[in-house]
This record gives sequence, structure tokens and C-alpha cells, in this order.
Amino acid sequence: MDTKGLLKGTSLVAGNDITGTQKAIYAINPATNETLEPAYNGATKAEVEQAVSAAWQAFDQYRAVSTEKRAAFLECIADEILALGDVLVERAMAESGLPKARIEGERGRTMGQLRLFAGVVRLGKATDARIDPAMPDRAPLPRADLRFQKIALGPVAVFGASNFPLAFSVAGGDTASALAAGCPVVVKAHSAHPGTSELVGRAITAAVKKCGLPAGVFSLLYGSGREIGSALVEHPSIKAVGFTGSRSGGVALMNIAANRPEPIPVYAEMSSINPVFVMPEKLSAEAQAVAKGFVGSLTMGAGQFCTNPGMVVLLKGEAADSFKATVISEVQALGTQTMLTPGIYKAYCEGVEKLNSNSAAQLLAKGNDSEQPNQCCPHVFATSAKAFLADASMEDEVFGSTSLIIECDTLDEYKVVAEHLEGQLTATVQMSDADVEAVRALLPTLERKVGRILCNGYPTGVEVCHSMVHGGPFPATSDSRSTSVGSAAIDRFLRPVCYQDFPSSLIPEAIQDQNPLNVPQLVDGKLQ
Amino acid sequence: MDTKGLLKGTSLVAGNDITGTQKAIYAINPATNETLEPAYNGATKAEVEQAVSAAWQAFDQYRAVSTEKRAAFLECIADEILALGDVLVERAMAESGLPKARIEGERGRTMGQLRLFAGVVRLGKATDARIDPAMPDRAPLPRADLRFQKIALGPVAVFGASNFPLAFSVAGGDTASALAAGCPVVVKAHSAHPGTSELVGRAITAAVKKCGLPAGVFSLLYGSGREIGSALVEHPSIKAVGFTGSRSGGVALMNIAANRPEPIPVYAEMSSINPVFVMPEKLSAEAQAVAKGFVGSLTMGAGQFCTNPGMVVLLKGEAADSFKATVISEVQALGTQTMLTPGIYKAYCEGVEKLNSNSAAQLLAKGNDSEQPNQCCPHVFATSAKAFLADASMEDEVFGSTSLIIECDTLDEYKVVAEHLEGQLTATVQMSDADVEAVRALLPTLERKVGRILCNGYPTGVEVCHSMVHGGPFPATSDSRSTSVGSAAIDRFLRPVCYQDFPSSLIPEAIQDQNPLNVPQLVDGKLQ
Repeated sequence: MDTKGLLKGTSLVAGNDITGTQKAIYAINPATNETLEPAYNGATKAEVEQAVSAAWQAFDQYRAVSTEKRAAFLECIADEILALGDVLVERAMAESGLPKARIEGERGRTMGQLRLFAGVVRLGKATDARIDPAMPDRAPLPRADLRFQKIALGPVAVFGASNFPLAFSVAGGDTASALAAGCPVVVKAHSAHPGTSELVGRAITAAVKKCGLPAGVFSLLYGSGREIGSALVEHPSIKAVGFTGSRSGGVALMNIAANRPEPIPVYAEMSSINPVFVMPEKLSAEAQAVAKGFVGSLTMGAGQFCTNPGMVVLLKGEAADSFKATVISEVQALGTQTMLTPGIYKAYCEGVEKLNSNSAAQLLAKGNDSEQPNQCCPHVFATSAKAFLADASMEDEVFGSTSLIIECDTLDEYKVVAEHLEGQLTATVQMSDADVEAVRALLPTLERKVGRILCNGYPTGVEVCHSMVHGGPFPATSDSRSTSVGSAAIDRFLRPVCYQDFPSSLIPEAIQDQNPLNVPQLVDGKLQ
Repeated sequence: MDTKGLLKGTSLVAGNDITGTQKAIYAINPATNETLEPAYNGATKAEVEQAVSAAWQAFDQYRAVSTEKRAAFLECIADEILALGDVLVERAMAESGLPKARIEGERGRTMGQLRLFAGVVRLGKATDARIDPAMPDRAPLPRADLRFQKIALGPVAVFGASNFPLAFSVAGGDTASALAAGCPVVVKAHSAHPGTSELVGRAITAAVKKCGLPAGVFSLLYGSGREIGSALVEHPSIKAVGFTGSRSGGVALMNIAANRPEPIPVYAEMSSINPVFVMPEKLSAEAQAVAKGFVGSLTMGAGQFCTNPGMVVLLKGEAADSFKATVISEVQALGTQTMLTPGIYKAYCEGVEKLNSNSAAQLLAKGNDSEQPNQCCPHVFATSAKAFLADASMEDEVFGSTSLIIECDTLDEYKVVAEHLEGQLTATVQMSDADVEAVRALLPTLERKVGRILCNGYPTGVEVCHSMVHGGPFPATSDSRSTSVGSAAIDRFLRPVCYQDFPSSLIPEAIQDQNPLNVPQLVDGKLQ
């Protein structure tokens, strides 16, 4: 791979390359522990100020561009990313340890997201346009002409995720939905894939220029530690935050945001163990097939997904024994996979060790070790529902291919376990027709606990579409009212404004009587 | 007024009368300083627990009732409030000092809000139903069947406002929108109107019974000080908070909510001075008419509105002098009006005194004093834009009929003043046709600063309709993404859930293919 000409090791501040002066970040190839050039010197607070000021300067102009131009900009970013070619795929592979097919698939997903949001901008549903015409003759008081639309919140700080170096990083879902909403974006690059970040950052910068948008619409900053991120979230001109990462990292940002003179929303996607409830009739009928599907979902991509199934609930008995036996034979046949970073590998080992040293959790199966660095060896543990309910630490996420099987004495105990859980991104129900009423009884609990409920699937694999919810009650996310994947993600970066008795020459396009943008309008309470 | 048989001085916990054991609250007639019976003993934390537990128990059942039943419940509450008859009007008058016509109008508005939300429930737009049908043959991966709807957040704590003892109190906008969303409600009664609160609380309780709903859907608690309110917001089964009141009160609740083990959203409507920008051409042409309209808006209801115009921006010159002369003659002709509570009167006097003792603010006019207790005497002060920009304290809200006229040297200074402002509920532009381009230049700033922008009106008078936004950036509210008046207020209490590959027997009604509720559905990205 020759990225010498492309990678400069600089932050990108409103179209300018800025070489930092703070501690350098280097990417590490987790498959070899080799350090990758170039160095990415950390930005200073002055550069945060520069990036956010440029974003603020660009804000009014950017949110005022036509919806068609904004949609075309998102599509242009997708094109520019594709135009990077193999150099992007190779650098992302080297920085993440992820295989080529996965990175290529993720690139496709990233472009798909950008194009989905272009469609969302054109559709205009998120604008939530409303018109209540004047009623000058109403008694006792006339009604004014009132119109309502949603507008962009302001510049957004985005924190890239390590586990999706493309789809949830520099040009990922948070960036795409914020740009779609009309918000400039300042990205804090994830230190695990600085080169991938720079390449994608340059693609966005090129798109900004090609589309004739103000340069401040996008900036990308590097920084080791939390200083740059904190400075971003503290900045008065940042009006919202998108984050995907650890619970401690997300909670830290939530605290900073809540303690600002002007508190701002933080959309942090943090922590989930994604319980799979195998209902009794399904378990009796298809223990082996479900167990195989579970192990496949658990070990895909070294288990490094927010929706990895970290917990399976079974009804104790012969069928559960069969399920476990299949899990054992499947897992024992598996080797290792390279994890994203040495830090993630270390945390994985600590999580496994914590379960190993927990006398209430029994190690059911593990895969075959490897001498390579940073290798995720899959583990499955088992415990009883009673032990699980008595030990909150068993609910801690272990990021990687480790899961805990929980055996219940009764079907009623499924519900007790479900009620006990913290908020989750997903819950899965494996069911047969004969389980329908049992699932119906469990559903209200699951609806209260999670953002997405699956029947007869596995939680890994998050479709990017209009109906997706990648969200859920705390600590799955910081804000259960939102999703970070799918078209509804745009709603996070919008707020309503009402226009009363405006002269027609000043009424925004989306809420004009003639509806030139052809957006859905709620006129006098009726959807047009 | 004979309310002896009706007022028992008890909290209402899930349908039960509970006599508190904590410090008693008595209403005070602010027009006479007379203490009104009965005593309302404060509730204990055990009663908070009882009320919230009942709400939690009721939650799954209540959110599952049919939309028609939920809508009928809201209408039933309206009917029960009307059925209270004159006793409600008289008690509200005695507790608030507000005149009969105002209270009767407010009762109508309260019922209107409940009926509006019944319509919102039937329309089903807030459910935001989405269906992305399965694509089993898609390559490389098939798409699952994905469906999306919004469901209720959970039990909501509502804090009644003093200035709308009906429309923003026990059965006010927060309660109506939370119940419409499917959330049980626990109200902390405002201590200024405990009897009004009890009467309305009994009306809701009667409606809960008549509609056959679980009793925990509604509770009403009394408590002096902040202990009961804090305990409510801290309770793990409370999932959102609605509040209208002071900035300090709202910020205190925001802090409690942000520091819970599971943080929850707080919708606090707090503080706004509602600037009125009189554009130069309009000022030249109609100084006197605009000045008269302004004084009318300023002094309506003793200025005790969240949207009271606390600030007017003028271009220095002859027309501004004419405006001020009219304000002086209008205000000097006015008498006083009774304020809502002795506490509000005291805070008003302190606010006026602070401006009086500010050498940069000149007292332009005051009304005629009165010997009656708790009387709001209108005051108008004047200052220069430069002085205003240099002194943040001049931006503090004075709740009551006091306003500050700010004179600019240039039209450009209007924008500087606007940019300087904190978040507001409203901004008003008084303009003529010749001001259009000047307003166009000011608009982006106003959109960023406020929830509602008015042309050629006055900010008091908040229409309850689909297009209303009674919200705005902090400190106008705690959450600029929301409104507390109008049908969009329901969105505050909803969160999305995705259902993947559900068998048809388990798919919720709003997102079934046959669409039995006839709600708007986004099917494969197209609005049906």
C-alpha cells in the first residue's frame, strides 16, 4: 500500500491541513502490532476553536442551501469515498485488522447511508412541516397564521467509533445525519484508525469544495486522550454531540454537556449485551439449529458489534442441555480473530477473566488459542437465572465474542430476568408458533427495555433503513428517544420553530402554501 | 363559594385520598392576603413511592389500551372539568387573583387542549409508523421485515405552573400530552393553587374510573419546599419530567435528572424576555400604534405570561422618541393588577428595584400605585444597546409588567443585540413592507435564538394548535427540541421501537400491513 502521497498526518480544519503540536498518535496494525506511519500530532485547543468557529460561521449559510444541494452534497461525499479506491480499503484493513470483504461491505454501507440521507432530505418528512391557516373571523379571538418547521440545531461534534472505521466514523451515520439535518460537523478522529479518518476526511473536504459549500461545514481533529473531545463538547458553539463507544466515555461526555452553561443533547451509543430469549417450544424443537445460529452471530467479526449477543436465556432441561452441547462443539472448533486494537483486546481479556474468576459462572466452552497478537478467543459461560439476578456484574458488557447462557427454572423467570436488565439496543426472541402467547406476555417488558426486538433472528446485522432503531434506554444510549442508525437519526439534530403571521415573501419554502419542495405538510391537522 | 364538601385537603394517590403528615400548605388569596381553607398537609416520600409504584403498575396496561379509548379518556377529563362548574372558577379566582373571564377562558383552553390531544391520538401521526417490508431475495444479503413505531416513555412527573392554574397545571398541557402519549402522570401540585389542583385532580380521577383505566394512571401530591418534587424526579420509575416555572427551579430538576443512575429527559419551560424588534420603517410609520399594542401586551394579566414582552428594540431618533412618549402616556394612565402570589409580587418588586438602581437603565414610565396587597404596577425602562450589551443582568426576566426599551444607533445593532441574547420562547418583528430585507437579514439569528417568531403581533397569546412552538433554546427551555404547547408536545413523551421479523399475530396495530388504525405509515420510504 502506498499512501505516502495521500496521508499527511494533519488535522483538517475547514479545508486547511493543520499539523498539530500535541502528542502524536500512530495507528497500530493489530494483526502484527506494527506501528503505521505517519504520525498524527494532536491538535490544540486553538485548533478546536478554529474548527468550531468555522463551523459556526458556516452554519447559517449551510442550513439555508436548497434541499437539492444538500442532498447532492451527501451523494458527492459517497462518490468521493468510492473514488479513494483500494487505498482506503487497505489502510482500513491495516488499522483495524478487519478482513477485506468486511471493509468493502462497510464502505458500501457508508455510501448507502449517505445516499439514504440524501433521499431523506429530498423527502422532507423530517422537516415536519405544519400550517394552521389564519382564522380572522374566529370568535372570541381570531387565529393568527401559524406555520411550523424543524431546522438544524447547530454545529455537531462527532466522535468516531473504533468498530466501524467507515460506517460509524468520519463519514458515518452521525456525520451523515447531522449534515442531512443542516448541521456543520466537527469530527474527533478515533485514534485507532487515523489514516482511514484522514482519507475519508479528505473525501468530505473535496465534496465540500466541489459543491461550493462554506469550508467550515466540515473539520476533522486528532488528539490523544480526552482533552480535544472535552474542549469540543464544552465549546458554546457546539449544539449537539454524536458518539459511539464505551459507557465510561459516553457518560463522561453526557456530564460535560449537562454541566455547560447551555446544556446540549448528547447522543451516545454505549453499552448493550443484547439478550436472546430462546422460548421453550422453540428450544425443544430446534435446540441445535438455534445454538449454531447463536454461535455464528456471537463470533462474527470477533464479536465486535454493539449488537453482539452477550446473553442467552434458556429453560433448564434436556433441550437446554442439547443447546449447550451444540454450543460447546461449535465453539471448540473455532479459532481466534484479530481484534480492533490492543486496548480492546486487553479489555476483552479482563472481561473474560472476570467471568472466569466468578464462581457463579461456569466456563462452558472456549475456542482454540493462538500465538498471534490481539486475538479474540471465543468464550461461552453459563449460570443460573438466580445467580445472574444476584450479581449485577454479570450484566457488564464484554466487548468481543463472549456470551453468558442463563438457565431459568421456569418460563416466568424469563420475565424476571428481562425486568432485571438495564436498557439494551436489542432483545431477540427465538420462538415457534407454540410460543406466541409466552412471547406476547414477555413483549411489554422488552418494549420498555430495548430499541429493537427481533423474532427468530440474531441481533448482529443492523439494516440501514427507515424502520431501524439502533438505540434504547440508558445505558444502551444516552437518549432513548433517538436512533443512531436509519433515517430517523436525522431527527436528533433538528428543533421546531414556529412562524406567526409571516408575510409570504419571508415564509420558508417547506411551509409555503404552494409547497414548492413537495414535502408532507400537516395543514389544519390534516396530512396532505 | 362553598367548596366544603368538595375540598378535602388530601393528596390523590391512584384514586385514594391520602392525608399527608408533612408541613401544611394553605392557599392565599393574593387580592386580600386572606388564608384559604382547607389545609393541604404535605405528602411523605412513602406517598411518592406509592404514587409512582401505582403509575408503574398501570403503565403497560395504560399504554396498551386502544387509541380510541385513550382519546375518549382525554375527552372525559375535559367533560369532568366542565362538570365541576362555577366552584372551580371561583376557587381558581380566589387562589390566583385572576379575573373571572380569564379563568373561564383558561378553562376553555384546558378542555380544548385535552380535545386537541384526543384528536392527535386518533390521527396517529405521532406514532411515526414505518414499515420496510422484507426483501428475501436481495443480494448479497436479504432484508428482514422491519417495522417502527413510537411508544410511551413511562410514568411522567408533572409540575404545575402558577400562572396558568388550569391550562398549565394539573390537567394542563404537560399532563394532556403525556396521557395522550400513553404515559401515566404523577402531578406535584403547585402550592399557590392547592384547591384548584384538588378539584381538577378529582375530575381526572373520576375520568380514570369512568373509563375503566387502572387507578395508577393519575396521582396528585402536595408538598411544600422541594423535597417531594426531588423525590419524584429521582424515582427510578419516573421516565420524564414536565415543568413550567422559574429558571432556578427548572435547572434544579435538570441537575437531579442528569445525575440519576439512569438520566431522564426534563422538559422545563423556564425563562424568556421575548424581545420585540420594531423595524425602522415600521417605527417611522406607526410608532404610536405599535407602542400602544406593546403596552397592551405588556400589561395583560399583570404581565404574568411566559411570553410577556420584556424587551423592545428601537432605532434611536424621532420615531423612537414618539414611541417612548406614547408608552409614557399609556403606562402613566394605568393602575395596578393583583399578582398571582405574594412570592411573585416580592420577586417582581426586587426585579423592578434592580433596574431602578441600575444607573444605565432610565425609568421611562410607571403606572399608578395602589394600597392593595400584591399589586403589579407596570414599569418601562430604557437604555442604549451599548449599555445592554455590556450588562448581562439587564437580560434577566422580571416576571410581571416590566419591560426594557433598548435604543440602537444603527440597524446593524439590532442584529448584534439579537446575537447577544440567550435562548427565548419568542421574538417579535414589527415591520412594514419596506422592512422586508432588513427582517430577512435578521431572521437567521432569530431562528437560532427562539422557538416562535411573530410578525406584526405581540407575543402574549399562545394558540393551541398543531403549528405552535412554545419552546426555544436554553434557558427558555431545557430542551430546544420540544414544545410544551400544541400538538407536537406529545413527541416529548415517546421513543421509537423497531420490530424485526415479527409474526403477524404479534405486530402492533399501528404498523400492521392492513393499517387498522388508519394512521400515516411510511412504507418503504413512501408516505401512505
